[in-house]
Amino acid sequence: MFNYDLSGKNKYYTLYTLLRDDILRGKIKFGERLPSKRAFAAELDVSVVTVQLAYDQLLAEGYIRSKERSGFFVEMVGEGLRSRPARQTEGKSAEEAKYRIDLVKGNTPSDMFPFSVWARLIRAVLSDCGEHLLERVPCDGDKELKCAVAAYLYRSRGIDVDPRYIVIGAGAEHLYGVIVQLLGRDKLYAVENPGYGKISSTYALNGARFLPINVTERGMDVSLLKSSQADVAHVSPSHQYPTGAVMPVSARSALIDWAKAQDGYVVEDDYDSEFRLSGKPLQCTYGLCPDRVIYMNTFSKSLAPSMRMGYMVLPPALYERFMRIFSHGASFVPLFEQKALAAMLDGGYFERHLNRLKNYYRTIHGKLLKKLAAVQGCVVKDSGSGLHVIASFPAAPSDEAIKRAAEERGVRIKCLSDYLLSPMAGVERCAVINYSGLTLEKLGE
Amino acid sequence: MFNYDLSGKNKYYTLYTLLRDDILRGKIKFGERLPSKRAFAAELDVSVVTVQLAYDQLLAEGYIRSKERSGFFVEMVGEGLRSRPARQTEGKSAEEAKYRIDLVKGNTPSDMFPFSVWARLIRAVLSDCGEHLLERVPCDGDKELKCAVAAYLYRSRGIDVDPRYIVIGAGAEHLYGVIVQLLGRDKLYAVENPGYGKISSTYALNGARFLPINVTERGMDVSLLKSSQADVAHVSPSHQYPTGAVMPVSARSALIDWAKAQDGYVVEDDYDSEFRLSGKPLQCTYGLCPDRVIYMNTFSKSLAPSMRMGYMVLPPALYERFMRIFSHGASFVPLFEQKALAAMLDGGYFERHLNRLKNYYRTIHGKLLKKLAAVQGCVVKDSGSGLHVIASFPAAPSDEAIKRAAEERGVRIKCLSDYLLSPMAGVERCAVINYSGLTLEKLGE
Repeated sequence: MFNYDLSGKNKYYTLYTLLRDDILRGKIKFGERLPSKRAFAAELDVSVVTVQLAYDQLLAEGYIRSKERSGFFVEMVGEGLRSRPARQTEGKSAEEAKYRIDLVKGNTPSDMFPFSVWARLIRAVLSDCGEHLLERVPCDGDKELKCAVAAYLYRSRGIDVDPRYIVIGAGAEHLYGVIVQLLGRDKLYAVENPGYGKISSTYALNGARFLPINVTERGMDVSLLKSSQADVAHVSPSHQYPTGAVMPVSARSALIDWAKAQDGYVVEDDYDSEFRLSGKPLQCTYGLCPDRVIYMNTFSKSLAPSMRMGYMVLPPALYERFMRIFSHGASFVPLFEQKALAAMLDGGYFERHLNRLKNYYRTIHGKLLKKLAAVQGCVVKDSGSGLHVIASFPAAPSDEAIKRAAEERGVRIKCLSDYLLSPMAGVERCAVINYSGLTLEKLGE
Repeated sequence: MFNYDLSGKNKYYTLYTLLRDDILRGKIKFGERLPSKRAFAAELDVSVVTVQLAYDQLLAEGYIRSKERSGFFVEMVGEGLRSRPARQTEGKSAEEAKYRIDLVKGNTPSDMFPFSVWARLIRAVLSDCGEHLLERVPCDGDKELKCAVAAYLYRSRGIDVDPRYIVIGAGAEHLYGVIVQLLGRDKLYAVENPGYGKISSTYALNGARFLPINVTERGMDVSLLKSSQADVAHVSPSHQYPTGAVMPVSARSALIDWAKAQDGYVVEDDYDSEFRLSGKPLQCTYGLCPDRVIYMNTFSKSLAPSMRMGYMVLPPALYERFMRIFSHGASFVPLFEQKALAAMLDGGYFERHLNRLKNYYRTIHGKLLKKLAAVQGCVVKDSGSGLHVIASFPAAPSDEAIKRAAEERGVRIKCLSDYLLSPMAGVERCAVINYSGLTLEKLGE
């Protein structure tokens, strides 16, 4: 049944890798029972301990789960949506459909989502909370979820947040809008250049002015910020999109000093800090000065695009202002979703899911780098975190040429220059490779 | 067991009323089985047909349901939240807590919500849609829900809407914000005076200017509107809050003429048109000119306050603009809620629920009018629709005196003058009695 070659060294690790890859590819399907350790060891002609170690690793990473007295079962849906009639393509533009591989957009593959866990939690919430689910949710969100987010932030980001100051919102765009309503439409919002277009366009859509500030290797250029008229700086210090710049702590404290001197605020958009694939997570700026930093993140990327949930941690004074403005309204997020997410966080399911995702992306990332190394004239800049890398082509004639060459291979790509909000030198010939939507299948593995 | 006196005329109706009131009061509980027709007829010493007719009426109105071969079961939760630890009171201000009866705020009682139906639909959606629930929802909402809303509008409001032009949003405030983003912050929005404060404050919060236009017995005064600089008129022609004015068709067509001449728009906020307690539903303005009217309504009032869902029907040109602005983003409402609501509408559960609610409010309304008739010096103005009536006290010294007198009886009330956005004559000595949160219990029944 399993045609595995375990002749090399480190047999357990090889077995773990083979099993994992087969689960990821969908060759071993969701719900399938793995052979018993003893039978499998006999079949592969290895010791029971080898199988035990491989299973332990898969268990720890959440690929399989053990059911008492009945064995080990595959947790993840390795094919799931791929084999279903692809509803998502309905909405795809002709532009998008002509590409085999999309390295611009990219949602985490939905078959990675622990659907069975989530469905179980939904059912539990339904019977535990009953009619309570119909009650009006306070504008800042459900208390239980606020506490669960605070505990999660403590575990994952090492910051100690009073749950009171957390506000739950319907995803990033909703929270950007709330920030404008909170800080004022008359303020000038500094955004990163090049940067994620939705941030500046959402500020504009909400009637606020924004000012692009160039990004260096140290993140947003604080000296430029200081000489500007900006009141608020919207930054992603852990991993800037698209440059991948990480802001060192000296630049962060300069940023804080700027905010203090201005009576201004820093919006720390920690959008993909979960996906630091190696090493320790980076400290967040919020911890340096909770009175001047609005910390925010969303679950749309880490869970599923249909889960419109995000949160922000407000400085106490801003939280009071938020309550003055919004307390007559209700939360935009249904209580149902809030309770289910709280259960997911408190039960450790979210972090298990993240670990599984990170493992998955580690594999993708490794194989992607190998592929890129084989591309002539390509130099990869990889900051080791987040779900994109920069591939520069110093010898390419132009950005257009790079995109055309990719297009000929059925690959959709953007360059750093496509993310510019105002002109800037030194960003030419760099492709932004967003691999969050990439799969082993698409990599031809 | 049932100590019912059916000695008068019209026995079946008396029996129906007694059973219904006991269900509403929670004396007969959710899930309880009613006696078989034969046994009940014997117990009450009436014919089986009498019981049959009473059961039929209860069935039609959704108070009970019949299970094949096992009898009739109570559908509604007659006590539900009332007997639970009241979480809602946690959030009550000291101000609110001192009142026995609140005739200002008021959510439809959550124990009227068909929770068991909803829970069943949620479970069905979970297993039917599976991983599809994780997909990104288009910015204008799920297609299935859009179709279900269009069909509902056809059945209930007699308007023929292309589902394509429907946009699903996270409740009224969200939709008001989208309207500003769609029509522009530079436009002047006419709002009703007196009016529902959240409309004008949400326009202001979104950076738009608003202009109060006085309301007469024929709704917003169109002649005043014509002489103003307004670009958009936000009206509730079916039942204005708080005056209760209903806009006659002549005034509606004048409104449409104004919009055409101005190249402007009418926002038809149909917020409680479902609750016309007698007679036929009123025609909506949208049908008169779908190119100039944005029709909107929400489910927060008719379903439950935690269901943050509403919709608007856009003129085709505005829909195209909406898609240009928002198509890169996703819907604010989780797919899960959208699918469950679609099933609720398509299965007829929503309309059954509405009928039950209307029945309930008809009872409350009748008893309330009887109580008010006994109050000295009180003249009731009742437009026969919506969930509030106006009680004027021509001999009262002042509005403050009316509110104080109510307060002494533990009743929280507001006057028409409390809803004024700009000064206006002729609104004095009128109490606004919002009875949507009233229960038989609180009425002392």
